Amino acid sequence: MYGLIGRIRAVAGKRAELAAILVPREGGMPGCLSYVVAEDPDDADALWVTEVWVDEAAHRASLQLPQVQAAIARGRPMIAGFDRRVVTNVLGGIGLRSR
Amino acid sequence: MYGLIGRIRAVAGKRAELAAILVPREGGMPGCLSYVVAEDPDDADALWVTEVWVDEAAHRASLQLPQVQAAIARGRPMIAGFDRRVVTNVLGGIGLRSR
Repeated sequence: MYGLIGRIRAVAGKRAELAAILVPREGGMPGCLSYVVAEDPDDADALWVTEVWVDEAAHRASLQLPQVQAAIARGRPMIAGFDRRVVTNVLGGIGLRSR
Repeated sequence: MYGLIGRIRAVAGKRAELAAILVPREGGMPGCLSYVVAEDPDDADALWVTEVWVDEAAHRASLQLPQVQAAIARGRPMIAGFDRRVVTNVLGGIGLRSR
């Protein structure tokens, strides 16, 4: 399984609005096993996004989905940057959607 | 919801053995909504653990569970250290177990 751990910096004051766009609804992203959006309590502009996908190809394919493209378009003006990004090899755990 | 993102360093050569202990089974940890264990592809001794709990109290309580205490006891000799730890305020997402 393909994992991503990343921190996104919102434009000042825009974190809540950006988070509302980033939090996905269940379903609709094939191969997505987990996608969690969280605030960084120590930085009022930062969000952590942790993702688990069946494989890297599933993640890449998701970026072409119409609803993801729309979310990217709406979110982009509120994103100041991506300041951490780790790719992981996910072994297992609790809360991974069944494939 | 209470989130944790952490990186654990295994004693050299012990990552796989440590990971086998850390990957939890479904059920048995009240208040645990997600618990994912992953290898860091860039560091042969590092594991990432990302967790989501109903609240901080649920996480704290889990540390007293017999099976968690047993896992800690078995894993401790294989842990060299914890080199990253971020507490987050989880907003939502995909793959969170229902409470």
